[in-house]
Amino acid sequence: MEYFLQTTDYVGVSFWLVSVAMVASTVFFLYEGMNVKSSWRVSMLVVGLVTLIAGIHYFYMREYWVATGESPIVYRYIDWLLTVPLQMIEFYLILIAAGIIVSPLVFWRLLIGTLIMLLGGYAGEVGWITAALGFVIGMFGWAYIIFEIFKGESSIAATKKDSIRKAFAALRFIVVFGWSIYPLGYIFGLLTPMIGGDIINIDFLNITYNLADFINKILFGLIIWSVAYQDK
Amino acid sequence: MEYFLQTTDYVGVSFWLVSVAMVASTVFFLYEGMNVKSSWRVSMLVVGLVTLIAGIHYFYMREYWVATGESPIVYRYIDWLLTVPLQMIEFYLILIAAGIIVSPLVFWRLLIGTLIMLLGGYAGEVGWITAALGFVIGMFGWAYIIFEIFKGESSIAATKKDSIRKAFAALRFIVVFGWSIYPLGYIFGLLTPMIGGDIINIDFLNITYNLADFINKILFGLIIWSVAYQDK
Amino acid sequence: MEYFLQTTDYVGVSFWLVSVAMVASTVFFLYEGMNVKSSWRVSMLVVGLVTLIAGIHYFYMREYWVATGESPIVYRYIDWLLTVPLQMIEFYLILIAAGIIVSPLVFWRLLIGTLIMLLGGYAGEVGWITAALGFVIGMFGWAYIIFEIFKGESSIAATKKDSIRKAFAALRFIVVFGWSIYPLGYIFGLLTPMIGGDIINIDFLNITYNLADFINKILFGLIIWSVAYQDK
Amino acid sequence: MEYFLQTTDYVGVSFWLVSVAMVASTVFFLYEGMNVKSSWRVSMLVVGLVTLIAGIHYFYMREYWVATGESPIVYRYIDWLLTVPLQMIEFYLILIAAGIIVSPLVFWRLLIGTLIMLLGGYAGEVGWITAALGFVIGMFGWAYIIFEIFKGESSIAATKKDSIRKAFAALRFIVVFGWSIYPLGYIFGLLTPMIGGDIINIDFLNITYNLADFINKILFGLIIWSVAYQDK
Amino acid sequence: MEYFLQTTDYVGVSFWLVSVAMVASTVFFLYEGMNVKSSWRVSMLVVGLVTLIAGIHYFYMREYWVATGESPIVYRYIDWLLTVPLQMIEFYLILIAAGIIVSPLVFWRLLIGTLIMLLGGYAGEVGWITAALGFVIGMFGWAYIIFEIFKGESSIAATKKDSIRKAFAALRFIVVFGWSIYPLGYIFGLLTPMIGGDIINIDFLNITYNLADFINKILFGLIIWSVAYQDK
Repeated sequence: MEYFLQTTDYVGVSFWLVSVAMVASTVFFLYEGMNVKSSWRVSMLVVGLVTLIAGIHYFYMREYWVATGESPIVYRYIDWLLTVPLQMIEFYLILIAAGIIVSPLVFWRLLIGTLIMLLGGYAGEVGWITAALGFVIGMFGWAYIIFEIFKGESSIAATKKDSIRKAFAALRFIVVFGWSIYPLGYIFGLLTPMIGGDIINIDFLNITYNLADFINKILFGLIIWSVAYQDK
Repeated sequence: MEYFLQTTDYVGVSFWLVSVAMVASTVFFLYEGMNVKSSWRVSMLVVGLVTLIAGIHYFYMREYWVATGESPIVYRYIDWLLTVPLQMIEFYLILIAAGIIVSPLVFWRLLIGTLIMLLGGYAGEVGWITAALGFVIGMFGWAYIIFEIFKGESSIAATKKDSIRKAFAALRFIVVFGWSIYPLGYIFGLLTPMIGGDIINIDFLNITYNLADFINKILFGLIIWSVAYQDK
Repeated sequence: MEYFLQTTDYVGVSFWLVSVAMVASTVFFLYEGMNVKSSWRVSMLVVGLVTLIAGIHYFYMREYWVATGESPIVYRYIDWLLTVPLQMIEFYLILIAAGIIVSPLVFWRLLIGTLIMLLGGYAGEVGWITAALGFVIGMFGWAYIIFEIFKGESSIAATKKDSIRKAFAALRFIVVFGWSIYPLGYIFGLLTPMIGGDIINIDFLNITYNLADFINKILFGLIIWSVAYQDK
Repeated sequence: MEYFLQTTDYVGVSFWLVSVAMVASTVFFLYEGMNVKSSWRVSMLVVGLVTLIAGIHYFYMREYWVATGESPIVYRYIDWLLTVPLQMIEFYLILIAAGIIVSPLVFWRLLIGTLIMLLGGYAGEVGWITAALGFVIGMFGWAYIIFEIFKGESSIAATKKDSIRKAFAALRFIVVFGWSIYPLGYIFGLLTPMIGGDIINIDFLNITYNLADFINKILFGLIIWSVAYQDK
Repeated sequence: MEYFLQTTDYVGVSFWLVSVAMVASTVFFLYEGMNVKSSWRVSMLVVGLVTLIAGIHYFYMREYWVATGESPIVYRYIDWLLTVPLQMIEFYLILIAAGIIVSPLVFWRLLIGTLIMLLGGYAGEVGWITAALGFVIGMFGWAYIIFEIFKGESSIAATKKDSIRKAFAALRFIVVFGWSIYPLGYIFGLLTPMIGGDIINIDFLNITYNLADFINKILFGLIIWSVAYQDK
């Protein structure tokens, strides 16, 4: 079992970069949360918890990768099970923070859509159901979330305030494009090999996931911070 | 001895999820406690200590499970001995926080009921007394707590303020239904095997306990937070 | 060397309980210290340092006990050498916090009495002097402290304010009865075996010390907190 | 594998000094950031994150050096990939903090110049491209940054306020002279040996890099702090 | 290699006491720094960093001592190289904190005097120069500092304010008498054996250094705190 990172292990380097960036982001979000307008505090705290949780898992994933050279898939799903629902809740929290009245059902719809997406993917990944069925369920959950934030109640509420409309646009972009990396990784990593393809390798998959987490967690948080910071 | 979590170890996954969720919850409660109305601060601090203590134990329990595959029963009881009394004190603290005058006897009744419940269970679990006697003593303690929060002085005091009445209703729900998981685990895990049954297995028992701790500690805290947050 | 706590190791359980309780108490005292009236801040900080120092030592003592099954006597004395003088200083600090004018000599008398008490006990325990002589010296130091807080200048000063008088009464109770556990442990553990008796065993001695530390440090701190909390 | 630092290992001593200095600097910057004028808070936070990230890497580098006696080159680049862009952003942040209006393009130009500089160096160091080409690309990125801060928009903006002009002068000095240590290390460590020279050894290279990081991160931060501190 | 402290290892006990006291002192100074008058904040922060840095090194020194039974001389010098200059800067900082105008040259003279003192000692200790020459250089640096704080510009400035004059007197006392332990240790530990003497042993030397660090860092900090605390 290796302990130190090898110079030529680029996947390990990407794990390292993300793990330390998560630590720094956590300090950033929690520190700034204490200073933004009080209505934004909970939003900042939640993005800080997202990077805190991701940071903890990335330290384990990094260690696992360096020691075994295998994909730390179980740690990824544990991380996603905790952080993705928290990120979805953010859409609800920033509406509240901006003083927009919105039904608590928004909260529940986002939470349930997220859990369907994650549990579908996990069930397919570990073989409780077929990989294809897991994919379909996961995509259904994702589609439901996208509907909610593009056409649902929260989407309509978000148009009521200028700064929120812009933030929503940016966050939607992340949920559609940034999150698409996960199903793509699923297709290339799990589905394609089944039909004989061999397009993706473990190194590429992990670097892609790491990059995606970097964007979807840290950039996601920075967008919220920039709205909170300017709302004085 | 294993160090890394196995992909197929669903019990281990549930230990992981709860351990990290406890860390995040602790940060959440302590962070928010610094910002709520000052009369709520101690209540928030105490729920933060509950998840802090649970988090420490879950890290050890998780490590124990991953390394040995056995139930970390001794760590669970140590955790409960510290966190359950703190949670019971919360019923008293939130009355005080809301400015309701209530006798210190409420505090002592809740504390003593909790200790009877826990020590009964522990004594039965480790064999100081018979499992059945331990169960009876534990149930008696629990019944006493339920009486206090449903019909006792604290219960009457809680009706004096609207927000507190709602919180009490939610917390009572947790104490009755959420906590029922522990005696049920005791019955199926300890008593039933004795009379020849073999209904429950160690995996199911631990997943159930982990889920129960998640609800009874984190959700419990979130209910108190939501009352504190809205009381401006 | 064992790493995990055994289910039947009740002494180990008591080490665990105290170690984690010290951590939680430290968070409690430091957190509350930031919010009490500013004149009480230093008193709260010092009780937080007492539990912080004890917490550090209890983690080592716990590990030592689990690994070796022997009494971690050297760690206990290191802990006491740091925490007991800090606690004695508290009698002086709470007088200052309450705005009572008191001579700095109180500070020095309490500090010196404490050091005599501890060094006497330690010298006897490790065999620099006979156990009996160590005991006599230790008792002399303790008697001197008791005189100071019952009949000395600090005692008189404490009567000047109602809340302080009550706190002093409670703290005196701890110094007399709570602290009596240490010389009793010394008698039964060190002196009695010498004259042929064999009354006490290592398990009982350690559980007693652990319980005593729990009361003498955490309860001690809570008494001071409750005075500080109510002094608004 | 050695665990303890050897008395005669002067390179190890320099790793130690920098690692602990980074920890202390992080505490210093984050602590002070909470107390400076609020417009300076983000600048202080970012310099605190720079030393935090560097501190984490220096602990690993130090351990790597003590254990293997080899250059921890991969950790250095990970560190630089995170901290150097953050430092470049500081030029933009302090203009904002001082209330000077400056286009967001400044931010992007500084960020992109930095990434070109780092990726060129890294690609040459690990052999993706020739060492000479990597050097040319890296120098190009550095030149671009120097142009921006000496003659570009940010440079012009910095003249608008007295305290900022002085800070810019000091920071520019660091970017030109302090940062020149890295390409010099590259030349002597990587390029010269290729053409037959053998001027530099691994010990000298690492001590130089450590000293450079000390100046370029800690002194860099202290300059920003001193401006922030005096701007009341 | 031993991991646990032996009961009869009094030198190890002194390492332990100081290591934990440093941790507690760090919490004390940083906590109090947040509450003193804002002009004193940086002074408090710097004494907190001194004990933080010393605490980190004492944990390593303690571990080194327990494991090897040898003098952790290299860790001591790393510690001193960081903490002693910070302490010298304190003389400058407390003048600034008290609102006394003093030339920045004071800062540089104190810093340079300290570095001469330390580097002389270190060079002699590790054999770059003869022990005797190292001693002479080190004494020269120390003498220069003593001149500055007794007769130099800072000394004159210190007379301008009553509380500062008292603090200066106490700190000077530490710099003369407390610091004299280090050259004495040097003489007895390094010089005397060379001329055939064998007065000192490693145990005595380490206990003395530990005691000196306790006084020169913690007591030093407490003196500054007491001035800051009373300056309201």
